[in-house]
Amino acid sequence: MSDTSFPPVNIAIIGASGYTGAELIRLLYNHPSVVIRYLIAETSAGQPVSAIYPHFAPFGLPDLVYATEVTWSDVDIAFCCMPHGLSQAIVAKLPEHIKVIDLSADFRIEDIATYEQWYGTHHAPQLQPKAVYGLSELNRKEIADATLIACPGCYPTCSTLPLIPLLHDQIISPASIIIDAKSGISGAGRSVKQPNLFCEVESNVRPYSVNSHRHMPEIEQTLSRVARLPIEVQFAPQVVPLSRGMLTMIYVTLQPGKTLEDAHHCLNTHYDDEYFITVLPQGQLPSTREVMGTNRCHIGITAGRNAHTAVVVSVIDNLVKGASGQAVQNLNILLGLPEYTALDLIAVFP
Amino acid sequence: MSDTSFPPVNIAIIGASGYTGAELIRLLYNHPSVVIRYLIAETSAGQPVSAIYPHFAPFGLPDLVYATEVTWSDVDIAFCCMPHGLSQAIVAKLPEHIKVIDLSADFRIEDIATYEQWYGTHHAPQLQPKAVYGLSELNRKEIADATLIACPGCYPTCSTLPLIPLLHDQIISPASIIIDAKSGISGAGRSVKQPNLFCEVESNVRPYSVNSHRHMPEIEQTLSRVARLPIEVQFAPQVVPLSRGMLTMIYVTLQPGKTLEDAHHCLNTHYDDEYFITVLPQGQLPSTREVMGTNRCHIGITAGRNAHTAVVVSVIDNLVKGASGQAVQNLNILLGLPEYTALDLIAVFP
Amino acid sequence: MSDTSFPPVNIAIIGASGYTGAELIRLLYNHPSVVIRYLIAETSAGQPVSAIYPHFAPFGLPDLVYATEVTWSDVDIAFCCMPHGLSQAIVAKLPEHIKVIDLSADFRIEDIATYEQWYGTHHAPQLQPKAVYGLSELNRKEIADATLIACPGCYPTCSTLPLIPLLHDQIISPASIIIDAKSGISGAGRSVKQPNLFCEVESNVRPYSVNSHRHMPEIEQTLSRVARLPIEVQFAPQVVPLSRGMLTMIYVTLQPGKTLEDAHHCLNTHYDDEYFITVLPQGQLPSTREVMGTNRCHIGITAGRNAHTAVVVSVIDNLVKGASGQAVQNLNILLGLPEYTALDLIAVFP
Amino acid sequence: MSDTSFPPVNIAIIGASGYTGAELIRLLYNHPSVVIRYLIAETSAGQPVSAIYPHFAPFGLPDLVYATEVTWSDVDIAFCCMPHGLSQAIVAKLPEHIKVIDLSADFRIEDIATYEQWYGTHHAPQLQPKAVYGLSELNRKEIADATLIACPGCYPTCSTLPLIPLLHDQIISPASIIIDAKSGISGAGRSVKQPNLFCEVESNVRPYSVNSHRHMPEIEQTLSRVARLPIEVQFAPQVVPLSRGMLTMIYVTLQPGKTLEDAHHCLNTHYDDEYFITVLPQGQLPSTREVMGTNRCHIGITAGRNAHTAVVVSVIDNLVKGASGQAVQNLNILLGLPEYTALDLIAVFP
Repeated sequence: MSDTSFPPVNIAIIGASGYTGAELIRLLYNHPSVVIRYLIAETSAGQPVSAIYPHFAPFGLPDLVYATEVTWSDVDIAFCCMPHGLSQAIVAKLPEHIKVIDLSADFRIEDIATYEQWYGTHHAPQLQPKAVYGLSELNRKEIADATLIACPGCYPTCSTLPLIPLLHDQIISPASIIIDAKSGISGAGRSVKQPNLFCEVESNVRPYSVNSHRHMPEIEQTLSRVARLPIEVQFAPQVVPLSRGMLTMIYVTLQPGKTLEDAHHCLNTHYDDEYFITVLPQGQLPSTREVMGTNRCHIGITAGRNAHTAVVVSVIDNLVKGASGQAVQNLNILLGLPEYTALDLIAVFP
Repeated sequence: MSDTSFPPVNIAIIGASGYTGAELIRLLYNHPSVVIRYLIAETSAGQPVSAIYPHFAPFGLPDLVYATEVTWSDVDIAFCCMPHGLSQAIVAKLPEHIKVIDLSADFRIEDIATYEQWYGTHHAPQLQPKAVYGLSELNRKEIADATLIACPGCYPTCSTLPLIPLLHDQIISPASIIIDAKSGISGAGRSVKQPNLFCEVESNVRPYSVNSHRHMPEIEQTLSRVARLPIEVQFAPQVVPLSRGMLTMIYVTLQPGKTLEDAHHCLNTHYDDEYFITVLPQGQLPSTREVMGTNRCHIGITAGRNAHTAVVVSVIDNLVKGASGQAVQNLNILLGLPEYTALDLIAVFP
Repeated sequence: MSDTSFPPVNIAIIGASGYTGAELIRLLYNHPSVVIRYLIAETSAGQPVSAIYPHFAPFGLPDLVYATEVTWSDVDIAFCCMPHGLSQAIVAKLPEHIKVIDLSADFRIEDIATYEQWYGTHHAPQLQPKAVYGLSELNRKEIADATLIACPGCYPTCSTLPLIPLLHDQIISPASIIIDAKSGISGAGRSVKQPNLFCEVESNVRPYSVNSHRHMPEIEQTLSRVARLPIEVQFAPQVVPLSRGMLTMIYVTLQPGKTLEDAHHCLNTHYDDEYFITVLPQGQLPSTREVMGTNRCHIGITAGRNAHTAVVVSVIDNLVKGASGQAVQNLNILLGLPEYTALDLIAVFP
Repeated sequence: MSDTSFPPVNIAIIGASGYTGAELIRLLYNHPSVVIRYLIAETSAGQPVSAIYPHFAPFGLPDLVYATEVTWSDVDIAFCCMPHGLSQAIVAKLPEHIKVIDLSADFRIEDIATYEQWYGTHHAPQLQPKAVYGLSELNRKEIADATLIACPGCYPTCSTLPLIPLLHDQIISPASIIIDAKSGISGAGRSVKQPNLFCEVESNVRPYSVNSHRHMPEIEQTLSRVARLPIEVQFAPQVVPLSRGMLTMIYVTLQPGKTLEDAHHCLNTHYDDEYFITVLPQGQLPSTREVMGTNRCHIGITAGRNAHTAVVVSVIDNLVKGASGQAVQNLNILLGLPEYTALDLIAVFP
């Protein structure tokens, strides 16, 4: 469906059999400047992608292949959708001309020691300095020139977007930030584990890894950079019974002299020109369904119980703005295209 | 987001506050030849559409208005998304230059007496002869020249698409067709009724109007026309706990001498060139999720318990191919555009 | 199914057509000391209860009647399941010999002015001094002698049970308590409102009434009494897509010198003898499914981000411990029966 | 919670870690004549059962053990909840004094050759003649004297209960019976497979094994016995997004001279005295939610499209009447107790 006049960019998706890989296919299929050349999936190689995702049957996509079958000189940009810990070795072996947009956690943490504390041995520390953290709205200048983009996690994207302006402008206190986060189960990927079964997720709300989730140091890294001082947050993730969707309720303390109106004004001003971010009128809060299937982040803010507190709420689709959509947004930045290219989507509701 | 060079078509959506109206907005927003000029909703007029559908907030859509506020000379084509029984009076009053694509049942039944048996008094019988039944794949020639298009119901679309070729080619018996249909609850619209509450639909499978549903005569009308003899079907609808999606299991008897292979070949041949229809390999059956959010119909066929029976399965998204998507497909036919314009969508999965 | 040897207690359920009324029927049906004599439902009177709840068809229950049809001298105890604001007038008119277990908010707030600030005019202020707040574990002595029991709201039950011991023993600071609460939609009752439709709740997380919910003053009333000083909490409710279930994540600050172990020990000690409350091992957190269908409250506690904070989690079934189950528990207290009578249920899982 | 005066029966549950094992625990916990002595689960042995099912934490159940740790002389009756193909070898090794209630398919098919065609090698053919097919309502006399009870599958229970009277009394034709069946996913057990993931089941309707499901020969065995002639049925199972619940729509042809009223009267008469079966008024159809959590089967019948056809609908909870509940019902028959002992439950709704 490409209708562009300049030569399209050739794409490989490494790890095409997972949910984020599939979501990349959905989004890139209508991208006017892209050709999906290779879908790489070691465990399902040799099959059409419709064998594992029937909804792709009608769309003439390339078959799943082994990485060893790829003619890498034909590839301009690789999306890497591997589980955490596997991207480093793969990326290290790719030819240098290939720019990499990585969706794993493997290159998100700048400090190797911190990385290894949470994820274990880093297998490509030499590449880490090249990696640009791919929170598009924060780092778009660096992303434009990057050769290795580490796309943020879903929780960090949803949590930091509303906090960045508030910390940057010193509207809120850097201490005592509490992030209560709810996520659909697709964030756990297509991996076959008992807690991901329908019967275990349906009709259930389940907290896990409270104040010990791997996304906590990633959130703190971003917030500390913006605030220019070390920030610790409380972070409490919970699985709720939906496939897609993420909502963070963030409890903040206003800096002395700052008001709810200041906070709302700060968010509004900061994000006024951002295509994918909508700041709701003060007191109005978003729900997850309104961004489902889109690359959007909706942010609301309302009063705390007293004048020096506030509650900030943000929602994203964890598979889009929290993963594959932001990866495509970063591709657009890399290519110098409008960021909304192929991402100009309205939520599917109901 | 329009990038077309010829003057766009001006659209009004009458009944924009219901689910099919909202789905039309989602689909038309990215249509290159269309401008959404008016969103008409009597009960919510005066508000931005985001007041009733927050997911539309970012998209710069026109506010909801009363029909009396519309400058009809600015409108080329009107989509009518009113509840059954209300379209007739509305359509009858529209200026003649406006072509109407109606999503209600009001003009689907050709025979006025049959209509009135199922729906009550027909309020615009004089218009009925002008109405073209908008099953795109069956009637596209008539649709291209129509001024009033009666889009099919969701059950009739899902049920008749697989049966039309099999009856037309006399592969299956016109007698003893049984259609067991399951639908998501969005087919009931946004109307506020107790059976549509979350607590009533969740974890439940509920049959209703078995062999007495209003879509049964509509199905029979289409099949009888194709088979050139009066056809009666058993039709058993059931609500299942999903918002979108529809699946029909159709139990058929093969004509003497005909085989499962004949039936599969017939479907394959008939639909080979249809953009929105995919016939799966013999024995492979579709599930609803693979067409969610799209205008597609996937069809499978497998063996019955013995050599003279077969089971045909078809799936659609009831709000898209079963309603607003097919309406846009008909718009494209009217405008002489490729039918997939603005409808070239991959299912949202998971 | 009664097998008791002493004369059973005659029960009337006022407002039997709502979800809490139906849940009372489920729980009382197997109660050995109870006869359900009257099911009162003004809008559905004259019908069998199975006309509005088909699952009751097999159980030989009395038909729904108007209140005016009741021979009140036959009634010993009335459960009142009316919407907020309607119980006061009804209760005021009941004969004096009838003890009332009210499930609405009408008698929960001791201070009339506070009540009226949140709910509007109080229609039976003369009865308020008689009302005992029916949080069974807190007030069982007063409940045993009560003639009017005001059962707590679901959020207050789930929120205060874990906080009461921690405040009472001065383990946590009375300031800066944050309660992030998620609830299934059955808490909204069977009332027919658009936000309760399947299509609106499914796949959605929706915050509402953040720091302005009517249950906030009720929570504060209980906590203030226990702590013997005025307490304000932040309270942020959210609807999640399940019919039943409630989870509160509570962010607390430990008093100087107090540790997580102190907090866990306090909870453990306080609730050691409580049949319906389980305190999980330190660091282990409950999920809603494990109490579904039961009168239980499971409580967990885990570390905050630093040594002076902690996160407490509690779960209940909002229709049981949060409504009808606690009402039956209070009935048992009134009757001098073991509190688990008819409530000795294991969760339905999956 | 046992309050019986005669010595209780000692129970072992083999395969206690699956969903049917867990459901047995829930149901037997309140059984007045039973003591749960052993919970056997090879892969989880050595742990408390609450380690794999947190909802059991409060109930003082025995820990999970290996079969080799059991003192079999202490056991009177063993429930066997193993996957198909594993029960035969286990049962063959149990001491003779132990009566076995098997929930697998291993002893359901009387004809060894038919068994092996669908399931592979039979590992205890010598035991097959002893096995009694445990459809309680059909075989209660044989069950009372049995030493090995083969509890029916969920689909066969739901499908044959409404058909048995109609075939026995020759109301319907033995030819052309079509069973369209929908099931919740808990029927697939707690086994960790991709199609059972939340993201794959949610919002989806998925047909599978149409006319090739292993429950088809089991259904045909029962119906053939009742009708005294070989019967073949079409059988089309589908997974719908619920944890529990099963509904069969059954399309039948009436025998010449028989009417819908005859069919309804036959069902009514046949099941008048059955505690667990409710035949609804003619034209009224059941939905799955009304039996959720119970051992009940609700049956409805309505008109076909013409006078010689009818549609029969039945619903069960697949984990209760379709598995563990019917197993307990059979235990009660074995013990000479009222069949509703410990099964006198009202559906959990909503």
